[in-house]
Amino acid sequence: MTLDTSQTPLLDRIAGPSDLRQMPDEKLAKLADEVRAEVISAVSKTGGHLGSSLGVVELAVAIHAVFNTPMDKLVWDVGHQCYPHKILTGRRDRMQSLRQKDGLSGFTKRSESDHDPFGAAHSSTSISAALGFSVARDMGRPTGDAIAVIGDGSISAGMAYEALNNAGAEGRRLFVILNDNEMSIAPPVGAMSSYLSRMYTAEPMARMKVLAEGFEAAMPEPMRQSAKRARQLVTGLTGSGTLFEELGFDYIGPIDGHDMDQLLPVLRAARSRATGPVLIHCCTVKGKGYAPAEASADRGHGVSKFDPATGAQAKSSPGAPSYTSVFGKALLAEAARDERVVAVTAAMPSGTGVNLMAERFPGRVFDVGIAEQHAVTFAAGMAASGLRPFCAIYSTFLQRGYDQVVHDVALQRLPVRFAIDRAGLVGADGPTHAGAYDIAYLSNLPGFTVMAASDEAELTHMVATAAAHDDGPIAFRYPRGAGTGAQLPERGRLLEIGKGRILDEGEDVAILSYGAHLQECRAAAEMLREAGLSVTLADARFAKPLDSDLVLQLAKGHRVLLTVEQGVEGGFGSIVMHSLARMGAFDRGLAIRNVCLPDRFINHGTPSEMYQDAAMTALDIAQTAQTAMGASGKVVSLSVAR
Amino acid sequence: MTLDTSQTPLLDRIAGPSDLRQMPDEKLAKLADEVRAEVISAVSKTGGHLGSSLGVVELAVAIHAVFNTPMDKLVWDVGHQCYPHKILTGRRDRMQSLRQKDGLSGFTKRSESDHDPFGAAHSSTSISAALGFSVARDMGRPTGDAIAVIGDGSISAGMAYEALNNAGAEGRRLFVILNDNEMSIAPPVGAMSSYLSRMYTAEPMARMKVLAEGFEAAMPEPMRQSAKRARQLVTGLTGSGTLFEELGFDYIGPIDGHDMDQLLPVLRAARSRATGPVLIHCCTVKGKGYAPAEASADRGHGVSKFDPATGAQAKSSPGAPSYTSVFGKALLAEAARDERVVAVTAAMPSGTGVNLMAERFPGRVFDVGIAEQHAVTFAAGMAASGLRPFCAIYSTFLQRGYDQVVHDVALQRLPVRFAIDRAGLVGADGPTHAGAYDIAYLSNLPGFTVMAASDEAELTHMVATAAAHDDGPIAFRYPRGAGTGAQLPERGRLLEIGKGRILDEGEDVAILSYGAHLQECRAAAEMLREAGLSVTLADARFAKPLDSDLVLQLAKGHRVLLTVEQGVEGGFGSIVMHSLARMGAFDRGLAIRNVCLPDRFINHGTPSEMYQDAAMTALDIAQTAQTAMGASGKVVSLSVAR
Repeated sequence: MTLDTSQTPLLDRIAGPSDLRQMPDEKLAKLADEVRAEVISAVSKTGGHLGSSLGVVELAVAIHAVFNTPMDKLVWDVGHQCYPHKILTGRRDRMQSLRQKDGLSGFTKRSESDHDPFGAAHSSTSISAALGFSVARDMGRPTGDAIAVIGDGSISAGMAYEALNNAGAEGRRLFVILNDNEMSIAPPVGAMSSYLSRMYTAEPMARMKVLAEGFEAAMPEPMRQSAKRARQLVTGLTGSGTLFEELGFDYIGPIDGHDMDQLLPVLRAARSRATGPVLIHCCTVKGKGYAPAEASADRGHGVSKFDPATGAQAKSSPGAPSYTSVFGKALLAEAARDERVVAVTAAMPSGTGVNLMAERFPGRVFDVGIAEQHAVTFAAGMAASGLRPFCAIYSTFLQRGYDQVVHDVALQRLPVRFAIDRAGLVGADGPTHAGAYDIAYLSNLPGFTVMAASDEAELTHMVATAAAHDDGPIAFRYPRGAGTGAQLPERGRLLEIGKGRILDEGEDVAILSYGAHLQECRAAAEMLREAGLSVTLADARFAKPLDSDLVLQLAKGHRVLLTVEQGVEGGFGSIVMHSLARMGAFDRGLAIRNVCLPDRFINHGTPSEMYQDAAMTALDIAQTAQTAMGASGKVVSLSVAR
Repeated sequence: MTLDTSQTPLLDRIAGPSDLRQMPDEKLAKLADEVRAEVISAVSKTGGHLGSSLGVVELAVAIHAVFNTPMDKLVWDVGHQCYPHKILTGRRDRMQSLRQKDGLSGFTKRSESDHDPFGAAHSSTSISAALGFSVARDMGRPTGDAIAVIGDGSISAGMAYEALNNAGAEGRRLFVILNDNEMSIAPPVGAMSSYLSRMYTAEPMARMKVLAEGFEAAMPEPMRQSAKRARQLVTGLTGSGTLFEELGFDYIGPIDGHDMDQLLPVLRAARSRATGPVLIHCCTVKGKGYAPAEASADRGHGVSKFDPATGAQAKSSPGAPSYTSVFGKALLAEAARDERVVAVTAAMPSGTGVNLMAERFPGRVFDVGIAEQHAVTFAAGMAASGLRPFCAIYSTFLQRGYDQVVHDVALQRLPVRFAIDRAGLVGADGPTHAGAYDIAYLSNLPGFTVMAASDEAELTHMVATAAAHDDGPIAFRYPRGAGTGAQLPERGRLLEIGKGRILDEGEDVAILSYGAHLQECRAAAEMLREAGLSVTLADARFAKPLDSDLVLQLAKGHRVLLTVEQGVEGGFGSIVMHSLARMGAFDRGLAIRNVCLPDRFINHGTPSEMYQDAAMTALDIAQTAQTAMGASGKVVSLSVAR
C-alpha cells in the first residue's frame, strides 16, 4: 500500500528519527519530498486530514532531525497534522490502517507510540502540556526538551494564551513552533490572526532566508539579539517587542516553514542557545505540494479517499441529507422569518452548517474563532439583549464552554439556543471527538430545556421549537452523518415542551428512546416482537423537562422498561430513574435497564463499528430486554443470531 | 445602618445614576468620598468583598456620571467590586442585607436590578457579554453602549483574551475599562501582569494628569492620536502599538483611576469619539482610602464584620480546623515525603491551602493565574512526565477546565490528583459558587477515581490515597468551612480503592452517604431510631469505582435505601441506581430515594440556611425515609418537630 520503494529510497532507510539524524542535511529536503508523496499516497486510500499534514512535512523532518525525540517531547497541537510524524516514527507500514477500526488513530495518541508523548485532537493544549514536560525536566525527570507545534488557528484560543502567559512568566526553556498557514479548518478569524498576517506580509520572506543562512554564523551574539534583528528586518519595527516578546518569549521569525535551509539552522540555533521560552514563527502552506489540496477552499483539510493523480475524491453514495445540512437549512428558514435570530460558531461555519445562514445573512452569523468559552457568553450577552442566538457547537467542543453554560447561561436563565452536532459516537475521529457527555452535563442544570432529535424531521421541529423558546436556555442534539431519510416538513412545528411520544403500544416491554438511537430501538422492538413479545416504543424527545407522566405510564404498564441513549451514565437514564425513584415507582418492582455508552472510551471505527463495540446494536438492546424479561420470569427466545 | 445623613449630604440626594448626572463635576469627588465611607460602614456590619469595592469607588461614580446607565449596559467583571455601584443604583438602603439570606447578592445579579444587565461571580466574562450587547445595539435592539470593567487579574484568563481577540476584529464600538490594581485575590501572576506593570511604572502617573486635563481641548484631533500620544508619554515608545492596539483596540492610558479630573474627561472623550473598541487603562489601589485594607496583604479582599475605626475583624470562634487547612497540611506532608509531588493553583494559593506547601517548597507549587484550562493540562503534562501533580481548584471553577479534564486527563488516563474544595453549597457567595456539579461531571469519565471526604480525617486519608495513586486520574471533594472536629491521624492512610464503609448496621432503612453530608445522615439515623426503626448508616467514600457489593448488600438487606450527596442529580445517586439496575436489583422492588440538591438554584445564605432551602436537613432526610417506609407498608412517626 506504500509507494513503490524505488520512489522512496531515502525514506526506506528511516526506521525512526535517529536514522534521520544520521542523514546529511542536503538529503533532508529530498526526504521531505518522499514523505509528502507517502502522505498523499496513504491518505488517498484512507481519507483523512490531508492538508494540515502536507503543510508540516518539512517541519516534521526538521524537528526530528534537530531534536532528540522521543527523549525530547514533541507535542503536535490538535494532532491532525501528524501523518508525516507517524511515517517518520515507525508507523509507516500501518498508514493504510489510518482512522479505521483497530488501525492508527488520526491523531497523536500516547498508547500508540513513545513518539506521541501527549495526545490531542481538541486544539490549543500543546503549550500547556509542553510546559508540564519542561517543569518535569527541570525537576530531574528523565525527559529532554519540550517542543509544541501549534497552528495560527489554535493559538487564538484562550487556553493557548493562558499557557503562553504562564510559560512566559515561568521563563523555562521551552520551544513553541507557530505553524502559521493562515488557515485552521476555515480561514482563522480574530485580531490575533490579523496581527500575524501583518507580521509576515510586511516584508517578503526571501529576506528571512538571508538571515537564516547567516544564523549560525551569528552564534557569538546572544540569540535574543538575533531574534530582534529578525523581527526588525521583517516588520521594520525598532525598539519594541512583538506581542510574543511582551509575553516573555524570545521570538524568531517569520521563516519559511518549507525551506530546510531556513528550518534546520534556525531550529539548531534555538536548540543550542535557548535558556528560556522561544517562539519560532514558521509560515507554511496548508496542502503544500499537492495541487488539488492547495487549490481547494479548505486546502484539503479533511478528505475522503481520492485519486492521487487528480485529487478527485470518492463521492459518498447519494442518500439522505446530513443532519448538519438539515440543521443549516432549518436555521436559515428561522432566520429569514425572524430578524432576531443570530448564530455563533467557533471556527466551524461549514462543519456546523451555519454557513448557509451566513451566505444570506452575513451580518447575523458570528465566527468567533476557536473560542468556545467566549462563544457561549457572547451568545448569552446577545440573548440578554433580546436577540435569539443559536450557538452551534459540536458536543465534544461545547465541553470547552461548560462553565459558561452553567454560570452565564443557566444561572441567568438566558435563552441561548444550543445546536449540538456530532452527538454520540462520531466514527473515524474516535474517542476524543465522541459526543458522550452533553446529555449529562446539560440535563442537571436548572431551567434548561434539553432535547434530542430522533431523525431529521424531528430536528427541523426542534430548531423551530428552540427559535420560539424565550423561557430560558434550550439545547438539541443530533448525530454526525446522514439522516434516516425521514420526510422533511415544509416548516418545523413547535413541539410541546416536555412531552414525548409513543410510536407503538405494547404490554411486555417498553423501550424509551432518547435521540438518534431510535432506529436501533425500532429494530430491537421488531426482534422482540418476532420472539412473541408485545413491545411499546416511545421517543422521549426531552431529557428535560422529562415527560414524567409518560415515564410513569411506561413503568406501570410493562414488566420491563428500557432507556436508550447515545451518551454515558448520568444522562437520560439517570433522569428517568431519579424521576421514578421520586415517584416510588421502584418500590414494588420494576425491571429497568439502561442502554447507554459503557464506562470505557470507544476506539475509532465507523459509527456502526463503534456502537457495536459499545454493545449498543439493535440485537444488544433486544438481548437486554430478553434478559430482563427472563429475570421477571418470562423466558424469551430471540431468533436473531449474532 | 447607613451613615448619619449629615455625613453624606451628596449621596443622600442620589436616588439613582440620573441624579448623579445632574451633579456638577466638582462635587463628584466629594460624592465618591461619601460612597467610600458608606461602603466601609456597610461592609463593617456584613463582611464582604471590601478591598475590590474600595478600589473602584471613583470609577463607579465616573462611569455612571458619564454613561447613560441602565440604557448603557455596564458589566462588572466578577462582580465582587460592585458595592459602590449598588449604592449608586438604588440599593443603598439594602446594603446591610448584603450576602445574607433574602438580602442583596454579593455580586451583580440580573434579577436584582436593571442596573445589573449581566450578572457575574466567575471572572473574565464581561468583555464577551459586553460584545453581545454591542452587537444587539447595532442590530437595533433597545440598548445603548456596552462597558466592561475588568481587573488585571481577570484579563489574564483565556476567556478574556478570546473576547478581546473577537471584539478587536469585530471593530464595534465597545468600552473595556481595565481596572489595574496589580492584585486579584493574590497578586496576579503571568507575563501579561508583568507587561501591564511595565507600562505603568515606566513613567510617573502625574504626567498623565497633565494629559488628561488637556484631553477635551484636544478634541479636534482624532482620539486615536491622543491615545497614541498618551501611551508615548508614558511608555516612551514610538511607532508601534501596545499589545491591545495590536489586537484592534484603541488604547488610552494608563490614567489614575482615583482622580476624577482624569476619569471624567477621559471617559467623556472616549464616549463622544469612539467608533470602535476602546480599552481604557485605569490604575487603582485595591482597598483605596481605608488604611487597614490598604495595609493588609490581600488589600482587604474578603473580610468578616469589622470595627470601622480600627479595621479589626470579628474573629470566628475557635473551632475545628477548616477543610482547606487540613488539605494544605496533608499536601505539605505528602510533598515532604515525595519529591515528585507538585501542586497547581489557578490564582488561589491561600484559598486552596497550597500556600502551606509553597512556603516550604516554592519551586514545586505553580500559580498559573486565573487559567483553569491551562492549569489542568499543565498538570496533565507533568503527570505524563512521572510527577505527581495535585491540581487544587474549587468545584465551581473546575468547570472552567472541564474539557481539559475529559480530553487531556481522562482520555489519556493520566494520574492528575484533583483536590476539589468548596464542594456543595458554599454560603454567602451563593449559587454562582455552588460546587454542585463535580460529582456528576467526573463520575462518568472512564478510568477516573472519584472520592468525597465525610470529615477532615477522611480528607487526610484521601490526600494520601491520591498521592499514591498512579493508575489514572483521581479526585476528592470536600466542603467549605470548618471540619467536624474529627481526630486527625498522624498520617493519612491508603484507602482501598472502591470500598465504602458501614458505620452502623440495621435492618429497616439504609442511608448511604457520599461525602460531607454524613453528619446530617447521622442525625437523621438517630431520629429514625428514636421512631423505632433499625437503621444502617454507610459512607460510600467512592462514587467511582462504586462499591457495588456494598450497594447490593444494602439494597437486599433493607426495605428502604437512601442515597445522600451534596450535589445535583446525575451524580452519586445516579451511579448507584445505574449499578442497581444493571444488577436487576429493582426487579422485585426496592424503595430507593435520592437526597440531593434540587433542580433549582439555591440563593445565598449560610450553608445551613441553603441546605434547609434545598430540603436537605437531617429532618428532611429522616422524613424521606419515613415516607418511603410508609409506602412500603410501615407507618413511622418521627418525634422531631420541624
